[in-house]
Amino acid sequence: MKVKKTGEVSGLMEKVLSLAKRRGFVFPGSEIYGGLANSWDFGPLGVELKNNIKAEWWNRFVRRRTDMVGLETALIMNPKVWEASGHLKEFSDPLVECKNCHERFRSDQVGFPVQKTSGMSEVFNLPPCPNCGKKEWTAPLEFNLMLQTFLGSTEEKSAQVYFRPETAQGMFVNFKNVLNTTRRRLPFGIAQIGKAFRNEITPGNFIFRTREFEQMEIEYFIPEPKNDAEWQGYFIDWQNKMKSWLSDLGVNESRLHFEEIPDGERAHYSKKTIDIEYDFPFGRKELYGLAYRGSFDLANHMKASGEDLQYTDPETGEKFLPHVIEPTWGVERTLLVALLEAYTEEKVKEAVATEGARVPTEVSGDEDEIRVVMKFPSWLAPVKIAVLPLSKKEELASFAKPLYETLAQHFAVEYDETQSIGKRYRRQDEIGTPFCVTVDFESLQDKAVTVRDRDTMKQERIPLDQLVLYFSEKLAR
Amino acid sequence: MKVKKTGEVSGLMEKVLSLAKRRGFVFPGSEIYGGLANSWDFGPLGVELKNNIKAEWWNRFVRRRTDMVGLETALIMNPKVWEASGHLKEFSDPLVECKNCHERFRSDQVGFPVQKTSGMSEVFNLPPCPNCGKKEWTAPLEFNLMLQTFLGSTEEKSAQVYFRPETAQGMFVNFKNVLNTTRRRLPFGIAQIGKAFRNEITPGNFIFRTREFEQMEIEYFIPEPKNDAEWQGYFIDWQNKMKSWLSDLGVNESRLHFEEIPDGERAHYSKKTIDIEYDFPFGRKELYGLAYRGSFDLANHMKASGEDLQYTDPETGEKFLPHVIEPTWGVERTLLVALLEAYTEEKVKEAVATEGARVPTEVSGDEDEIRVVMKFPSWLAPVKIAVLPLSKKEELASFAKPLYETLAQHFAVEYDETQSIGKRYRRQDEIGTPFCVTVDFESLQDKAVTVRDRDTMKQERIPLDQLVLYFSEKLAR
Repeated sequence: MKVKKTGEVSGLMEKVLSLAKRRGFVFPGSEIYGGLANSWDFGPLGVELKNNIKAEWWNRFVRRRTDMVGLETALIMNPKVWEASGHLKEFSDPLVECKNCHERFRSDQVGFPVQKTSGMSEVFNLPPCPNCGKKEWTAPLEFNLMLQTFLGSTEEKSAQVYFRPETAQGMFVNFKNVLNTTRRRLPFGIAQIGKAFRNEITPGNFIFRTREFEQMEIEYFIPEPKNDAEWQGYFIDWQNKMKSWLSDLGVNESRLHFEEIPDGERAHYSKKTIDIEYDFPFGRKELYGLAYRGSFDLANHMKASGEDLQYTDPETGEKFLPHVIEPTWGVERTLLVALLEAYTEEKVKEAVATEGARVPTEVSGDEDEIRVVMKFPSWLAPVKIAVLPLSKKEELASFAKPLYETLAQHFAVEYDETQSIGKRYRRQDEIGTPFCVTVDFESLQDKAVTVRDRDTMKQERIPLDQLVLYFSEKLAR
Repeated sequence: MKVKKTGEVSGLMEKVLSLAKRRGFVFPGSEIYGGLANSWDFGPLGVELKNNIKAEWWNRFVRRRTDMVGLETALIMNPKVWEASGHLKEFSDPLVECKNCHERFRSDQVGFPVQKTSGMSEVFNLPPCPNCGKKEWTAPLEFNLMLQTFLGSTEEKSAQVYFRPETAQGMFVNFKNVLNTTRRRLPFGIAQIGKAFRNEITPGNFIFRTREFEQMEIEYFIPEPKNDAEWQGYFIDWQNKMKSWLSDLGVNESRLHFEEIPDGERAHYSKKTIDIEYDFPFGRKELYGLAYRGSFDLANHMKASGEDLQYTDPETGEKFLPHVIEPTWGVERTLLVALLEAYTEEKVKEAVATEGARVPTEVSGDEDEIRVVMKFPSWLAPVKIAVLPLSKKEELASFAKPLYETLAQHFAVEYDETQSIGKRYRRQDEIGTPFCVTVDFESLQDKAVTVRDRDTMKQERIPLDQLVLYFSEKLAR
């Protein structure tokens, strides 16, 4: 079977973007008003994908573990949080402006060295302006990435505040509250899913980099380590958990890179940081991150707030600041990788299995007919089962609709009676529905339906009264 | 049994607030930095309550219905959206300033008439300033409630944008995209859950009114009605669905008021609006809303964007703008009402059922001992089952932990081996856990455990191999 998957499909990014729009996964934000610089809305299928990703993550890392609790903190926090965390001072990008055309760019993205040195404009070998080609630049200017707003009823009395640029600080600031109310013992983690905001200078690549995005993040608190081995075990454990997650998402290992950040490039407080990178069609880019942050954050907040954030060992009575392992996932990047990995093109003729087929064969006259199929793992698929009466005839509907109602009590199900059965199969393939249930006239007699598998295109006749059990087993994790 | 519930408990609001903090439902936002004007964080149990509310709503109104689809739109939309919707011009509160002490207030809240008339300061019978008592006021000033920020890399080039004050416009702006990609026919609805932001002048009453909050909202599109009866049926249907929702949330009907907004007070485009009000401890206030909005929103966006937002009847070919029924729920208000309704105080002596009790009786020496129990409906309870080994002895743990692991595959379960069994029962009562499973030394022999019911405090001995089935039935909706 000739199958084309990520890495083989040419123009993959454009095809995924087009399918995402056409089928209702992702729409350009505010589209009828000409959009808004790289903002995106999630359509009926996109929101289900997002919900499935978040629910699976939450169940796996919070609900099914005794050592994890959830948290949801405000998007707008007291500005002192960002002072203590360093975001007010250091969370910025250096910008340069072309003296000729006055366009501004992130200095590293037009070819300036990453290190923030002064007097950059006097360096030889200046890069050309991507807009006008001249090489006349202003000195780099620091630009804070936090979105600011004002709370309060009048200009002079209102407070300047920031929308959080990450979810992490919410967990650190609430560490003591969580500890006191849940009486957890180390090691334990706090998990949060939520929006964060960055005034990116160059957002882009579809939903890869946007100014509002969603994070899934864990701060895993461990006892103060006496030696490296004591934190390395936890670090490797989380690295493995992130690997399993990616595998369950259906990501091909060959496109993943666990890139350790070398000494000198890491933040000073971190003894180990791994960027989990993925080979996107637009290049190898960061997907997730994993960092050992020591006690840096709790120490900062303890100093700035004056609150004692130490943990007391219940056995020894010893007081200390826990250390932290921090795995971070981006929701939209997860969704983008899921779309890219699922996208498959294959020749229908070579893919189809005629064995057991009852509905008209899926092979058209066209020898080279290609089908596009989104091979999502079934837990991720936005629709699990499509109920498709063979025709719009009332007698089929009166059989198929109660069947739909029954299945919808257990699974995410869609009902579709428009167009030919072939076109409906192709539509379900394109949205990644693992199973189609076809109701034909024989169903009225034999009380059975044809179940068609998305990937093998094989068809099986299943008696009605076994259908819920059949899908429960097929869709079980 | 003497039970005190909402409406009978004195100081209910303070008690719920204290329990919410003590048990980890809700914490003051940025607390270690002295908080931030009426912002709140949701603790480990609060986030589960919120998730349960949102998941139930989504399953009920989106996934299990053929006539509904979900959507998730950006928090920051093109400002033209707010121009077309009227929010830029009209979404404001009139403010007055005391000329003596310079405090500012929402004019209606200090006693000015609601109608926006000019020359207000010359009216006789001015209300006194709540701060200094003087009656010297400035003229009312309009104050827009949208939170603004700037996108873009430099002050002079950045765009002024707004964080959405409601989720609704995201659905209207995407109406055509949803229609085209899902090929729905009228009537159908678009649902969205998400954050919205209002720069409230007087936030307050715990999580009742905050500057960032979450909405669950539906825009239900219906054919252009030929007469009133044609939209009234849909309106009543949604009103009934909101009633069932409130009933399933456990809300006492006597504290609910379906208040129809009379002619003259409704927005001009609305033929019917109902405020669903609740008797909060701090007064009768709006909880949810239900409005018939006609074709007002689609017409505005069609005019402002120039895009054809009409629907074409597939049978007659007739083109028209659908009309809209809009039911709106607040997530945090739902959570607040759930906390208030669940809060119960009762005398243990009178509540306890000794029948079948194996673990030490729950009646202490104190004749008047009161227990606090959160009687959440079981679908809402953040923890469904607590596994409690009678003591910390290793042999009990080695029996209880695998049991916990098994149950955690199916339900939200907590494991707790600290403190006396009596204290642990009280803790589970306070967080509203429907069932406690106690593992005692006899369990090792008879392979059975004691299941204790939160509300009746009755105890039942259940064999291990029947436990998953037992809870599946007890916790089924």
